[in-house]
Amino acid sequence: MAVQPELGTWHLALGTDVVSAEEVLDTPCLVVDEGIMRRNIEEMAAFADGLGVALRPHMKTHKTPQVARLQIEAGAVGATCAKIGEAEALVEGGGVTDVLLAYPTVGEPKIRRLLALMDRAQVAVALDGREAAEALSRAMVAAGKVLKVYVEVNTGQDRAGARAGEEATALAIDLARLPGLRVVGVMTHEGQANAAAPEAIAATALAAGRALVETAAAIRDFGIDVLHVSVGSTPATPYTPTVPGVTEMRPGTYVFNDNTAFRHGRMGPERCAARIVATVVSRPAPERAVLDAGSKTLAMDRSPSHPGHGYVVGHPTVEIARLSEEHGVVVLPPDEPGFGVGDRVEIIPNHICPSVNLMDEIHVVREGRVVETWAVTARGKVR
Amino acid sequence: MAVQPELGTWHLALGTDVVSAEEVLDTPCLVVDEGIMRRNIEEMAAFADGLGVALRPHMKTHKTPQVARLQIEAGAVGATCAKIGEAEALVEGGGVTDVLLAYPTVGEPKIRRLLALMDRAQVAVALDGREAAEALSRAMVAAGKVLKVYVEVNTGQDRAGARAGEEATALAIDLARLPGLRVVGVMTHEGQANAAAPEAIAATALAAGRALVETAAAIRDFGIDVLHVSVGSTPATPYTPTVPGVTEMRPGTYVFNDNTAFRHGRMGPERCAARIVATVVSRPAPERAVLDAGSKTLAMDRSPSHPGHGYVVGHPTVEIARLSEEHGVVVLPPDEPGFGVGDRVEIIPNHICPSVNLMDEIHVVREGRVVETWAVTARGKVR
Repeated sequence: MAVQPELGTWHLALGTDVVSAEEVLDTPCLVVDEGIMRRNIEEMAAFADGLGVALRPHMKTHKTPQVARLQIEAGAVGATCAKIGEAEALVEGGGVTDVLLAYPTVGEPKIRRLLALMDRAQVAVALDGREAAEALSRAMVAAGKVLKVYVEVNTGQDRAGARAGEEATALAIDLARLPGLRVVGVMTHEGQANAAAPEAIAATALAAGRALVETAAAIRDFGIDVLHVSVGSTPATPYTPTVPGVTEMRPGTYVFNDNTAFRHGRMGPERCAARIVATVVSRPAPERAVLDAGSKTLAMDRSPSHPGHGYVVGHPTVEIARLSEEHGVVVLPPDEPGFGVGDRVEIIPNHICPSVNLMDEIHVVREGRVVETWAVTARGKVR
Repeated sequence: MAVQPELGTWHLALGTDVVSAEEVLDTPCLVVDEGIMRRNIEEMAAFADGLGVALRPHMKTHKTPQVARLQIEAGAVGATCAKIGEAEALVEGGGVTDVLLAYPTVGEPKIRRLLALMDRAQVAVALDGREAAEALSRAMVAAGKVLKVYVEVNTGQDRAGARAGEEATALAIDLARLPGLRVVGVMTHEGQANAAAPEAIAATALAAGRALVETAAAIRDFGIDVLHVSVGSTPATPYTPTVPGVTEMRPGTYVFNDNTAFRHGRMGPERCAARIVATVVSRPAPERAVLDAGSKTLAMDRSPSHPGHGYVVGHPTVEIARLSEEHGVVVLPPDEPGFGVGDRVEIIPNHICPSVNLMDEIHVVREGRVVETWAVTARGKVR
């Protein structure tokens, strides 16, 4: 693979006075380019607007109130969160007033927190089974509340969700009969599109969207008012939301993008807003260097189309071959410049969401200078 | 594989009044059995004592001051840490007064923090190159201090470290000449033993230990007083520290143990002190259940001898087949008991260290009851 020198222009934080002055930022750390992030946010909002589809970003990617505010200001109708703790943090500080918990709510502690959250924001939950629904129904009746419910539909990912078609329809009918619950939508996470080869993403995503729309129609035939037909997943974004009948999209990664996104050919590193800045701490052999970013910083997710553990900006022939917790072992051409002890590199992680979850703060870079530091307040909210 | 019913007796937190009462613990969460942990700590201390080898545990496994105190009280001579932030947290609250930073210290911010740490504890750093050493030498001279140095030796892991033999000896000679530094030891992390097949661990570890001892002898021939010959890695513990001439051992995982440890045949789950308690949140198909613990809780590390993402205690035929961030997709026999929505399971992670790093607290279980909650204060200290 030939070196692509133009990639070097997309360094965010290297070679600038502020960041290279180590008084300001020690490594490893997470920097986000404000300009790239804003462009990502605005273009996705315009894309959704052009389709007439509501944008409800999955906020697990950034877990940060300030980023939530930017998404809402750009037109997002609300937030998608997995765990209640994420929603609590983003309602608290992020201007989020409308939340879809795209995850089953199971167990008394979470039901109590859900009831409290409903006093502070509009909340809907996704459900894929009767047991969880019955417990929520009882709690809502006892509290004198009505909870909005999306039926989670499995369109091929085979994770959670009732199977598209008869199974999901039967579930929707049962849930609609439960007091205290109101079925208002259907949702799917077409994660199978992420796992597909790049040339198969479109067909996979479109099939998922059609299956969801057909399921919504089947549910409506039973008199249930399915207002929302909601699809997820950034890699499938160009396709699934375009299916007629889809009303809502929930991409997450687009706000920052990552190595998986651009390895899929949809963009270059100039659209990847988030980078881990790391320092070379050892150069034990000409063909090997060690970075201070390991799995405790980059996470261990693999990229489907790339063998290493992230993309080193400006060094396309360099591979982050192995990670241990604190060591990123880089294999490189012996004459590669920029890998002496003390040198810094920028890494675009394979999967930005788990990497953000490992960091306590985001350093925001504007025109090459760090201008703000934001706390990742929804980090670590596994409950 | 046949069901092993006796494993069911090693549940820590299920079926007890306290933990199964959801008022106390919501899931996913990390519980540690105090009795198992204390036994692990005491037996390792006795093993080291019997060999006449100093025990300096790597504290990345627990990252928790209270556990550090137990290790010190049992006879550990001090702590091994990777990043300065871990050492700061454990000196602060964990009674640690002697630290080996088994990681190169590179860059001005870390050197400043190192100088401050030296005012609060005995500190040695591992170094594997001249550039980092020269910067530290200048800083120590300027501060009027002398820093103890271990030369990091590569005995076959090919991560960091100067190669055992001539390369490491030449480095030691150069470092010993630098003002402000005092070469006091050599260290290796024989991680290649972890990666080896179970039947090859012993030979791999013993070879690493011998190479390190020979390197220490070669360095001593040049008049350098190598006081410490230090080996690491829990899987290699039965072997490397037994090599004559080794003076110090730095196991980490032993305090909790994990799925990798017992899959290697060295122990059963009765020696695994730490478990993730998770709840079944979806049962979309007879052969598939979804747990509320995904990669954001269990981490993505694979176990060398096991295909899944952790061991479900009491359910040896159940496989955690796939993880996404918040979903653990379990493949199970359709008639497996205990996997209805709302049921709880205990999981022994493949690699306990990164899983602890993902959690904010440890719940300590004594005789089946949660008695304390400890903050993982050295969590997330990537710098």
